[in-house]
Amino acid sequence: MPVQLRKLDSNDADFNAQLRAVLAFEAAEDDAIDRAAAAILADVKARGDAAVLEYTNRYDQLDAASVSALEIRQDELHAALAGLEPARREALQVAADRVRAYHERQKQECGSDGFLYTEDDGTVLGQKVTPLDRVGIYVPGGKAAYPSSVLMNAIPAHVAGVQEIIMVVPTPAGVKNPLVLAAAAIAGVSRVFTIGGAQAVGALAYGTDIIPAVDKIVGPGNAYVAAAKRRVFGTVGIDMIAGPSEILVLCDGSTDPDWVAMDLFSQAEHDELAQSILVCPDADYIERVQQSIDRLLDDMPRRDTIRTSLADRGAMIKVRDMNEACEIANFIAPEHLEISAENPLQWSHRIRHAGAMFLGRFSSESIGDYCAGPNHVLPTSRTARFSSPLGVYDFQKRSSVIQVSEAGARTLGQVAAELAYGEGLQAHARSAEFRFK
Amino acid sequence: MPVQLRKLDSNDADFNAQLRAVLAFEAAEDDAIDRAAAAILADVKARGDAAVLEYTNRYDQLDAASVSALEIRQDELHAALAGLEPARREALQVAADRVRAYHERQKQECGSDGFLYTEDDGTVLGQKVTPLDRVGIYVPGGKAAYPSSVLMNAIPAHVAGVQEIIMVVPTPAGVKNPLVLAAAAIAGVSRVFTIGGAQAVGALAYGTDIIPAVDKIVGPGNAYVAAAKRRVFGTVGIDMIAGPSEILVLCDGSTDPDWVAMDLFSQAEHDELAQSILVCPDADYIERVQQSIDRLLDDMPRRDTIRTSLADRGAMIKVRDMNEACEIANFIAPEHLEISAENPLQWSHRIRHAGAMFLGRFSSESIGDYCAGPNHVLPTSRTARFSSPLGVYDFQKRSSVIQVSEAGARTLGQVAAELAYGEGLQAHARSAEFRFK
Repeated sequence: MPVQLRKLDSNDADFNAQLRAVLAFEAAEDDAIDRAAAAILADVKARGDAAVLEYTNRYDQLDAASVSALEIRQDELHAALAGLEPARREALQVAADRVRAYHERQKQECGSDGFLYTEDDGTVLGQKVTPLDRVGIYVPGGKAAYPSSVLMNAIPAHVAGVQEIIMVVPTPAGVKNPLVLAAAAIAGVSRVFTIGGAQAVGALAYGTDIIPAVDKIVGPGNAYVAAAKRRVFGTVGIDMIAGPSEILVLCDGSTDPDWVAMDLFSQAEHDELAQSILVCPDADYIERVQQSIDRLLDDMPRRDTIRTSLADRGAMIKVRDMNEACEIANFIAPEHLEISAENPLQWSHRIRHAGAMFLGRFSSESIGDYCAGPNHVLPTSRTARFSSPLGVYDFQKRSSVIQVSEAGARTLGQVAAELAYGEGLQAHARSAEFRFK
Repeated sequence: MPVQLRKLDSNDADFNAQLRAVLAFEAAEDDAIDRAAAAILADVKARGDAAVLEYTNRYDQLDAASVSALEIRQDELHAALAGLEPARREALQVAADRVRAYHERQKQECGSDGFLYTEDDGTVLGQKVTPLDRVGIYVPGGKAAYPSSVLMNAIPAHVAGVQEIIMVVPTPAGVKNPLVLAAAAIAGVSRVFTIGGAQAVGALAYGTDIIPAVDKIVGPGNAYVAAAKRRVFGTVGIDMIAGPSEILVLCDGSTDPDWVAMDLFSQAEHDELAQSILVCPDADYIERVQQSIDRLLDDMPRRDTIRTSLADRGAMIKVRDMNEACEIANFIAPEHLEISAENPLQWSHRIRHAGAMFLGRFSSESIGDYCAGPNHVLPTSRTARFSSPLGVYDFQKRSSVIQVSEAGARTLGQVAAELAYGEGLQAHARSAEFRFK
């Protein structure tokens, strides 16, 4: 049974309204889930390990005697790595090496150690960059347990110089994913606990006798995890709350339509809410991609998910030209943007907002998801307008450095005092004046 | 009537518990305020300008005929600047120039335009840095209307290359603060609307016919504004929700105690919840600072606020030595850290967590608050463990760039396919394989 994607044309009078309708997505804010997460957090804060153990045994059908018993030791992680079939182990290692190399470059290019400069009167100003002490990485259990996510979350922290990386991953019914454990071993994770849900977020945010409190929690999770992360924000840092994954393909009509169809599938197979959109100036080409979709879909093991995703949230947009396609891309600010075109640079220079740009027909998003090197944790739901891929910079912070010379204390102190009096803050003014009067 | 600050000694058996008690601060989460903010946001989202106008006229005792009538034109901003007495205008200009110079340096040192590199097989990887299109700056009205905050919030955005900077500032009873308007003129603010509260946050987040939707909202506000910002996070970016301001003074006992006393006052005068802490290895010196406080306090116009703040939240901590002082500073991760000591660098090198470091006895915090150059919007309540001063980087975001060569599509594609099959994502694998099979 084929799937018909919604077709839009930028020449339609109500195109903008149609486009907004296609993009419209409201993350379901479930009060019951939020209250449940809040209650679990409060309990973990109050009772620590005892609460963590109870919730874990209950929700993950375990029978652990203590939280200590929920820790996976390094030797087990490395055994999991050694136990992988060679081809898969090799692929995981290549991916980790490339992700590390890219993030090392990111650290080197920016945020290695800030700057410092001295003014004529001897006043020194600067910015010191330091890593976070300890971070927590949440890795979902069950079907969404992705080793690539372990690499993408842990390696930037490791490159940033974070001393302790604590990973939590629920293991319902005690089932452990060897690829996830192997990825932890490769990525430089310090400790792993098989806990999940809001109780894991609480343990990482507040700390328990066994589980150390972290400074920031990153990584995707279910609705309870997301609600818990929102609530502990401020006590610890958190990454963005991720929405459904999206791909926007800008194509000039020169790429094999089967390739584009499969790229749309690769996003749609994630889940029913994922969004795949093709933008193209060539109506015939759009039709050919539709035919490829119809021909290729039934062979896909995850065809049902793909079909629902494409039918409910997918779209094919006919535009006047590639310039207009770029403008639409800037409006959508997609998580993944493929510019599948001849000489893609002429178009990518016009893109202001995108999580990751895949340039040229050989740049499939899937290569970026696993092993190109850049991070696959990207801003979703138009947040690329104001946020960035997960990176080394998310595991560093800056401190301003101000060393005022005796001469500077006079010249700057007079300015500060003048403005402080203007704001009615006399102690501010006096504390500056004391230095030169 | 003198004020007695709490005295702690790191030799006390329960010192850590005492210190935690001193630092303990729970931002009051008022459900009524949160619900009220949510209702206003929903109304502004639904009715736009009509709702903004109603709430503004009601809460700010205005009688505006339209939201357009609430806009302050550029000529009025520049008239306010021209109308300042020369000394104050000059001080404001010097402060703005220095803040701009520091943030230009920040942009130049990091995040000017990312990086790009080519691998042996022709695959290109990189990171593109772009400014946000449009940002909103919230400036509180009434007593907390600080022109320095306008400079500190708007200038980094302007330096980052943000094209449109929309400032909102409530004017209860129509009272405008000329210094705030003048600061907006100097800082490069594009448009100013005299609106505030949750309705202003909603207008900026969702946009109305008159007020354009922004990509990020920064700036301090009251509890309604904070609640509204939390709720629109995701639709737009927001800065940290600021807690009470804090200063931690590490002193080796070589600074005039009056200077240190006044530095503690300068924090305490902000509000009753502000926190001023002195850490020193010299018990006699701590006593001398206490005497300076007793002698100087009654002369301060804001003595009542200072007294309450110091009595309720202030502290003086006797430590074994400056090394221990640095360790305590790292635990507290203060918003403002003064290292008032001989050769302060020997100690600042040990500091991992602080919003801003003021080195040497001539570096009063107040100079940093107004005109040293670094930003005065800093992480509070121990969040310097994982967050940074407001900076140019808050108004930029990054996009990953991936251009895979035909050769890379084979080598990388094989790795991606292997891992994709391992994760059960066959469409990911096929989309990589299509490029080389």
